[in-house]
Formats: sequence, C-alpha cells, structure tokens
Amino acid sequence: MNFLDKLANAASKNNSLVCVGLDPDPSLMPSGTGVLDFNRAIIEATSDLACAYKPNLAFYEAMGIEGMVALKETLKSIPSDIPIIADAKRGDIGNTAKAYARSIFDYFGFDACTVNPYLGHDAVDPFLQYSDKCVFILCRTSNAGAADFQSLRVEVEGGTKLLHEVVAERANEWNSKGNVGLVVGATYPDELKSVRSKYPSMPFLIPGIGAQGGDLALTVHNGLDISRNKTVINSSRQILYASRGKDYAEAARDAANSLRNQINRVLADEG
Amino acid sequence: MNFLDKLANAASKNNSLVCVGLDPDPSLMPSGTGVLDFNRAIIEATSDLACAYKPNLAFYEAMGIEGMVALKETLKSIPSDIPIIADAKRGDIGNTAKAYARSIFDYFGFDACTVNPYLGHDAVDPFLQYSDKCVFILCRTSNAGAADFQSLRVEVEGGTKLLHEVVAERANEWNSKGNVGLVVGATYPDELKSVRSKYPSMPFLIPGIGAQGGDLALTVHNGLDISRNKTVINSSRQILYASRGKDYAEAARDAANSLRNQINRVLADEG
Repeated sequence: MNFLDKLANAASKNNSLVCVGLDPDPSLMPSGTGVLDFNRAIIEATSDLACAYKPNLAFYEAMGIEGMVALKETLKSIPSDIPIIADAKRGDIGNTAKAYARSIFDYFGFDACTVNPYLGHDAVDPFLQYSDKCVFILCRTSNAGAADFQSLRVEVEGGTKLLHEVVAERANEWNSKGNVGLVVGATYPDELKSVRSKYPSMPFLIPGIGAQGGDLALTVHNGLDISRNKTVINSSRQILYASRGKDYAEAARDAANSLRNQINRVLADEG
Repeated sequence: MNFLDKLANAASKNNSLVCVGLDPDPSLMPSGTGVLDFNRAIIEATSDLACAYKPNLAFYEAMGIEGMVALKETLKSIPSDIPIIADAKRGDIGNTAKAYARSIFDYFGFDACTVNPYLGHDAVDPFLQYSDKCVFILCRTSNAGAADFQSLRVEVEGGTKLLHEVVAERANEWNSKGNVGLVVGATYPDELKSVRSKYPSMPFLIPGIGAQGGDLALTVHNGLDISRNKTVINSSRQILYASRGKDYAEAARDAANSLRNQINRVLADEG
C-alpha cells in the first residue's frame, strides 16, 4: 500500500494525527533500558494512538553499528498498517542520492523519508522515483537557525519570495507522481499558515510542538490540509521521556493520548 | 593531531592534493570482490599518492548494516597519518546534529566531515565544537541541480548576493575555531574562482573533476589556497573504476598518480 493510503487509514483507524518520533537518547531513557526494548515498549504503548512513527536516524547512528541493528529490529516491531517515516534529511548528488534512497526504501523498507533541498532537483529525484513512498522536503525547519537561510529574500520573476517559499514552489513542481510532502515547523506559525494556504492538499510533516515550544492549537489551525489526513504532527521527546522512571511506557501512552485528544478537540472546534 | 596539520603533512609527504573518494558501488566493482577487500586494495595502492580519503556514507548505507561494518573496517586500513573525511552532508536541528556529530567523530573517528547548511547555524554548531576536526560546509555543489537554489539571488544589506555566496560568508563568520571549510564543485569554475578569491586561506573540498567533467587545470588555477595545502581535490569513480578487471588496484594507482602529477604540473606552471 502506498504511503498516503497507509497514512489515511492509520489516521482514521486511530483517530489521530500524532506521529511518534522514535529518537532514543540513552541519557534520557530509564537507566538500564536498552534501545530496542525501549522502542518496543513505546510502540506497544502507542500503536493505537499514532498515525505514523518517525525514527530520526541520527540517534541510531550515534550508537554505531549496534544502533543500526536496533533500528532495523525496531522497524519490525511497528504494526504493518502504520507508516514509518525515516527522518534522515539526506541530500547528495544524483548518483549518491540513489544509494541513500536504496538504503532507506529498499534496505530498511521505510514508507517515507525527509530530504534536504539545498542540492536541487537531481538530489531529490532518486527518492521521487519511488512512487509508493513519500518524500518530505525540508521547507521551513523548526529550529532557531532556520531563518539564517530559509528566510532570506530571494529575487524571482516579477518580485521577491522567501527562500523556503521558493523551495515549496519547486517541491510542488516536482510532484508529478503525487508523492511529495513538505516539512514545516510548528515553531513558525505564520510561515506554516502561509505555505499551507498555497498547498492545501500536500502532505505536511510538522515537527516542533512539545519540547521545541510550538503552539498546538495554532499548529493545527494553520497547518491542517483539506482532507485532514495528510497532516502529520510529530512529537518525540514529549512522549518518549514523559517519565524517566519504570512507568515510561505508560507515561508515553498518556502523553500520546493527551496530544491526540488535544489535536482532536481543535479539529472539532474547527468544524 | 588536528585535521589541518594532518592534511598539510600528508599533502607534503605524498606531494599530492588528491583525495581518493572511497565510494564502493558493487555494480561497478570487479565481480566477486567484496567491499572491504576492494577498499583495502585501493587504499594500499594509493596511500603514498593521496592527501586524504573520503568515504561517502551513502554507498555503505545502501548495503545496510553489512555496509556499515565494511566502512568501520575500511577506516582501520587507512594509514593513521592520512586524514579521512566523512562525506555525509548531514544537517539537522541542534539536538539531532549533536547525535550525528557523535556518530561521525566519536564512533567512526573521522577527521572531518561535510555538512549541509540549509538548517542554519545551530545545525552546524555541534560539529564545530570539535575543534580538532574540520567541517566542510556545502557551498556550491558540483551537480547540475546546484543552481536550483544555490544560485538564487538574495537580498542582503546594501545589495544582492547569490545564495551560495551568503553561505560562504556565514561559514566564514562561524569559523571562530579555525575548523571550517567549504565544498565548492569543480564543475562551476567561475563560482569556484569567486568564492576562493574571498577566502584565500580556507580549506576547500573540491569534488567534480573526472566523471563529473570539471576541468582540472581550471580547478587548480581557480581553487588553490594561498598555502597550497588546504585544497583537497577529490576523485572517486575515475580512480576506483579505472579498470573493472582484476588489475583494478594497479589501474587505480595509475589513475591516482596521473591525477596527482597533472595537478602538480599545473602547480608548477602557477609558479
């Protein structure tokens, strides 16, 4: 099943736009708990509450080969009807991008991934060739430094635009297979609103609520797509580390459930 | 020893500005040859001719966990006096960038790496904290799509600049520890000349000669730094796949030697 159908089904079945970010950080995990056991417990506790899971590869790579083994095993623990997004933010020249796409889609079997647009179309294209997958292109990221380049004002035909607006425009042009999405951070609600208003039906991956401080109601209000099942709101630390004690899985479940319900209340208010 | 000293020593000892890109692609390798054996043979054949080695992580990740094991073992085969650059092009928010830096510098023990600037300063900063390493920031990449964003004209105080020029400027500002370099492709000689003229002493990693078609003499002429030991000219496919027969290591040696000598002749002509 392709990513978008899988996402729509999981969002509907679990009545949820919550993506659980699987970013295991041993310094924040209950002591003595291995990464794979931790992830399995989190997945078991949240798989009826999530529309997607999103491991960020950095946290596994930091643990070296052992971490990559844990990632591979973690993916097997995720129910097959919930889509999995590789947060990898890769970007390289065509030949090399093809190798990254093989790793993410063929070897690990992810349903979607994040990519960095800085190298241009030929760096993204090998990912786009996988028509069943989804390629979330970084547009406006959630971090403080995002403005350094993404908010630069750029000359375009007939005027100016912000760099991330040009990226969104190009991403939309590259979307001939209907498998392109955007990453737009919750920490910049005005930018989120502006990009969403131009692309009302594109899948958006929205990080930045919770630990990063994005306002949830505003995020839902500004970021929601017209079909209400292509808006993936990610939370990692707020869920994973809700408790650092032995009850971490239970606490993660409560945090995920609370986030899901908060989002659904905003959706109800939106009418 | 820090990266720059190691690079200067290796460049001087081997009289070479050639960086050998270790990008194993089984479809181009002699059939029946494993990645680790292939890399070891290439390294043994070229270690007196190279100023650095540069594995691109994509080619190892494409082979999954087995590939990462081959990478880790490959690194052990490189003589300790030759610096190793991780071509990883990572870029993520601070917390996550820290995990990537741990993977590249602490786990694998690379001497330098490439990073993507799109997320801004806080995405690069965790790498910069490793003052003995070198962080090559993507400025103007060698691929055809580079112009999509890197050549956009951007409004800055008092005028306009191209995006990659702004990236170079920021990178220079972030260089308080003297461990910042730039990636500028040989396929864009005018851009290479213009960026080098502004930053005559910064380390440059220059991909794009050989298979990608960059002109060698122009690359050396336009890209050379003032001390002549911070200019790393990479070649991957031209060396690795000089022969696809059993004589591949010998052919790689010839190709690396020929490239080194061509560069040195241009240097001699430069006076």
